[in-house]
Amino acid sequence: MNAVPAELLRATAELSETVTRPIPGSRKIHVEGSRADLRVPMREIALSDTPSLFGAEKNAPFAVYDTSGPYTDPDYRVDLAAGLPALRAAWIAERGDTERLADFSSPFTRRHASAPSLADVRFPNIPKPRVAKSGANVSQMHYARRGIVTPEMEYIAIRENQRIEAIREAHLLRQHPGQSFGAAIQKRITPEFVREEVARGRAIIPNNINHPESEPMIIGRNFLVKINANIGNSAVTSSIAEEVEKMVWAIRWGADTVMDLSTGKHIHETREWILRNSPVPIGTVPIYQALEKVGGVAEDLTWELFRDTLIEQAEQGVDYFTIHAGVRLPFVPLTARRVTGIVSRGGSIMAKWCLAHHRESFLYERFEEICEIMKAYDVAFSLGDGLRPGSIADANDAAQFAELDTLGELTNVAWKHDVQTMIEGPGHVPMHLVKENMERQLEKCGEAPFYTLGPLTTDIAPGYDHITSAIGAAMIGWYGTAMLCYVTPKEHLGLPDKQDVRDGIITYKIAAHAADLAKGHPAAQARDNALSKARFEFRWDDQFNLGLDPEKAKEFHDETLPKDAHKSAHFCSMCGPKFCSMKITQDVRDYAREHGVGDADALADGMAEKAAEFREQGAEVYRRA
Amino acid sequence: MNAVPAELLRATAELSETVTRPIPGSRKIHVEGSRADLRVPMREIALSDTPSLFGAEKNAPFAVYDTSGPYTDPDYRVDLAAGLPALRAAWIAERGDTERLADFSSPFTRRHASAPSLADVRFPNIPKPRVAKSGANVSQMHYARRGIVTPEMEYIAIRENQRIEAIREAHLLRQHPGQSFGAAIQKRITPEFVREEVARGRAIIPNNINHPESEPMIIGRNFLVKINANIGNSAVTSSIAEEVEKMVWAIRWGADTVMDLSTGKHIHETREWILRNSPVPIGTVPIYQALEKVGGVAEDLTWELFRDTLIEQAEQGVDYFTIHAGVRLPFVPLTARRVTGIVSRGGSIMAKWCLAHHRESFLYERFEEICEIMKAYDVAFSLGDGLRPGSIADANDAAQFAELDTLGELTNVAWKHDVQTMIEGPGHVPMHLVKENMERQLEKCGEAPFYTLGPLTTDIAPGYDHITSAIGAAMIGWYGTAMLCYVTPKEHLGLPDKQDVRDGIITYKIAAHAADLAKGHPAAQARDNALSKARFEFRWDDQFNLGLDPEKAKEFHDETLPKDAHKSAHFCSMCGPKFCSMKITQDVRDYAREHGVGDADALADGMAEKAAEFREQGAEVYRRA
Repeated sequence: MNAVPAELLRATAELSETVTRPIPGSRKIHVEGSRADLRVPMREIALSDTPSLFGAEKNAPFAVYDTSGPYTDPDYRVDLAAGLPALRAAWIAERGDTERLADFSSPFTRRHASAPSLADVRFPNIPKPRVAKSGANVSQMHYARRGIVTPEMEYIAIRENQRIEAIREAHLLRQHPGQSFGAAIQKRITPEFVREEVARGRAIIPNNINHPESEPMIIGRNFLVKINANIGNSAVTSSIAEEVEKMVWAIRWGADTVMDLSTGKHIHETREWILRNSPVPIGTVPIYQALEKVGGVAEDLTWELFRDTLIEQAEQGVDYFTIHAGVRLPFVPLTARRVTGIVSRGGSIMAKWCLAHHRESFLYERFEEICEIMKAYDVAFSLGDGLRPGSIADANDAAQFAELDTLGELTNVAWKHDVQTMIEGPGHVPMHLVKENMERQLEKCGEAPFYTLGPLTTDIAPGYDHITSAIGAAMIGWYGTAMLCYVTPKEHLGLPDKQDVRDGIITYKIAAHAADLAKGHPAAQARDNALSKARFEFRWDDQFNLGLDPEKAKEFHDETLPKDAHKSAHFCSMCGPKFCSMKITQDVRDYAREHGVGDADALADGMAEKAAEFREQGAEVYRRA
Repeated sequence: MNAVPAELLRATAELSETVTRPIPGSRKIHVEGSRADLRVPMREIALSDTPSLFGAEKNAPFAVYDTSGPYTDPDYRVDLAAGLPALRAAWIAERGDTERLADFSSPFTRRHASAPSLADVRFPNIPKPRVAKSGANVSQMHYARRGIVTPEMEYIAIRENQRIEAIREAHLLRQHPGQSFGAAIQKRITPEFVREEVARGRAIIPNNINHPESEPMIIGRNFLVKINANIGNSAVTSSIAEEVEKMVWAIRWGADTVMDLSTGKHIHETREWILRNSPVPIGTVPIYQALEKVGGVAEDLTWELFRDTLIEQAEQGVDYFTIHAGVRLPFVPLTARRVTGIVSRGGSIMAKWCLAHHRESFLYERFEEICEIMKAYDVAFSLGDGLRPGSIADANDAAQFAELDTLGELTNVAWKHDVQTMIEGPGHVPMHLVKENMERQLEKCGEAPFYTLGPLTTDIAPGYDHITSAIGAAMIGWYGTAMLCYVTPKEHLGLPDKQDVRDGIITYKIAAHAADLAKGHPAAQARDNALSKARFEFRWDDQFNLGLDPEKAKEFHDETLPKDAHKSAHFCSMCGPKFCSMKITQDVRDYAREHGVGDADALADGMAEKAAEFREQGAEVYRRA
């Protein structure tokens, strides 16, 4: 038996306190649905009272969408070797269309399950896999098309609404009408609406029957914009333990799904640890592992080997597969004059295969066979954009759009099989060419959800590509993209560490929320309003806690005003105690309240009175609370 | 004489190595104009040869716009107490329309010049001021309207072109046609075009005759999008030395102008140190200092005191003044129902004054008198948006647009006096309401340059507002905004330190460049192309050095692949040495070069041949260079 490096053994250890410590000012709540085992987690942020200077009122707590799973629940005892509770197990079993296998279907998996050399890195409690009974289709799309509202769909409806009625009432929701470019934004999400959207292919619910630990979520243009975080080791760096910790870290900050892009050692084992401990859907790019299996020699890839890899991963519980079936032989030459050629790893693997064999891609030719596998486990397609542009120069070119059109064609094939499908998009695109991507995707792919990487709006800022891409991501999210794949500051330079993952995720939460606001998602502006009200009223802790990163906000504030007394100070370090613009506003507001608001002329007239009174009081706007 | 704290004395010391160290891979060059004293600085980035794997070619050096002044010139000896050379002195003098005064016009300045208590914080070599001869107007707009092309205009034309012909030739410039929303983007900037744009008010050249150290630059929709960085001490933190160092730091990273927003102690003295050492235009908000002079009691402000402050600052050399003359008495009540009321410091000072006196703003009433001062020194207006929205909820409301319309009215008054004018804009605006701001500004303000703060596209990310705002900034820059005021990660939380300034500036350089690309600025894409080519060819150092922050890019790369050998490695830590997407592309490209490119079908047919050959070679894409 080989010696196992210490960092791999750490996979069985505890998570660090960094990734599990409580989120300031928040507690975990559960909103119950129509059955006792349908309990949707949310994070409730407690708010303090408005100080008397600003009118002394209670501020109701504020519930936000929560991707962090049980890890942020102080009542939950983390045991990575046991994995998370299988919260969907009963729902899956009671549908009666699946069966548990006695052993794994993939010879590869069976070998790995028994190899003594892997004993120390293997997840200790691997469950036996489920599969659809012969002839059954267990995809959520299939149920939806037959008119069935699954518990997953109801769960999602509750989750998407974020207790909007309570928030609307407590926080006097005022919101700008959005501009949604033809999306069907609802005032309130119903389980039936979820079903309809899944049935017509405009949304997907990625949840493999072998990943019953996942908390259902939806990806679609008429729901909250989601974000994905990539993790994964490579031949050069990182270990299993790091990747599990990174997954928990990613969902803590708000990753809605996580892709495991491992290409190094022990990718099968790493994936098992991640899946058993992940409350969010996990996506992979199976061709990466297939390539490992043939020693990195792309032209040695075969359909049979790839097929076994799909089954291997489907039986572990992977929720969506990126499959680059749109990289067809005739499109490869279209990349020849590009500045950066083919930049997708999966895309170039397939291009290399096509080139070496001078044959059409087996992914394209075997697409219907792939559909058969997907529907037996409810794995969703993420049709990969292997020919996406890797530079501004290559944006929106013939290669990119030829592939996109093919992905549209394949979407129709997948839908024929009731297989859930989303479409991957670019990449590097200057701002003025972003919209064309969205419009063409909607048209060619029948409104299947779009899932884009950024896009980066310039190439000239290595080290800051979370930002170059957040600009494009926010815009394309507004135009209709359903999920945004994050980019970290390390993009193009190295593998992200924890800080990079956090920066990437917060940046993408910003992009997604900016898109929700612009589209006019009904609950989106409530949080902005609540935070801005807290800011105006100098409720510092509330301002921090309502933000996407309470810890960072507090840390920044405390750098200049560290004392506890400053947390309730009615000033800040920018202007100092002598003068503050927020306070004068309160005078205007007090006056308006007394005299009625709305008629500017009447108010201006009435201000003579206010002016006199104001001066009598010594023009003191810095009243003590 | 009072004891002077040590940190103030540090103003006379040397700059730290951090802010003056050479920029990797770059050297300072000068492009000479029509006269020997017209030498436009640029930063030339040396590029290495393309490795033989990718076709072995020379890569010409790449010149970029350079805001850093002499500080990055190794031949220049920094002496903060002497200040920078007065490069425009001869141009100003030879126009013969100004005179040097024997002493300062402002009694305040004269008191400060002689007060013994200020000896240790006072700049030691204060020049005597210049002013227009009686009846003269020394603004660049005035010259422009009389058909005069000044050396400043020629300097700007050379600077804006960034050696585009050389770059076009050497780097085979390929660029997407832009979408400029009706802007008049030129293929090449001529001195005459600069003159025309200034004459019609579509661009401004902020350069006070008392700031001859400044390197001329232009702010206008038909030029490169510029960015401003704010610095300044407050009553709570920071010193003169820190502010000078911060200014040099800001221009190192690319700030085109710097605003000194000091509100604490020694603001007159701090400003003198900054001006004498700044190669970029300096802006201020004179009402901040006026308020200090009346002990922070806004209602004690008078026109006479404000007027003296304008003259004081104009004779020091401030290049543009933010003046909140659009905050009119009748608009104040319009802010009463806002979530965050008035958030501009200048706006709330004036609102408070109007409220206390129940009178129209003296800034509005005395606007023509202010114009008389501006044209005697060539100070440009930055008409402040005192009623800008401070939250998403308040975006595009009646108060904001009432003020904007007034700024349009005042622009016409300023233009009657040939005073250069730009207009400040918001603030906090969701994406779908950004465009309305730009369109209304263009319409109401006769295409005077727009200068916006962000806008922030959501309120929910304190600690990350450089990013929430970069999204809005990039978009509004694309729509036509001429200068973007940066926002740092500390916005709403504290005063930015050096790291925050760097983050804010790079973020805004990204937004400005993304806007230039989208508008179709003729030289914009060359840098993206050069960097992407370097990236594709694994010229790591070139990739770092062509980026906006070479130091950060290298640091990130070196975290995972620290060895020098990895700087020329044909792989990176993301995929490792075993597989790399860039390499397969080179095969496609080699093939295309041999067979001619353009006909995809012919290429696809021809690929059978390639496939055979490829396999014969052992399908080795990892050829050694």
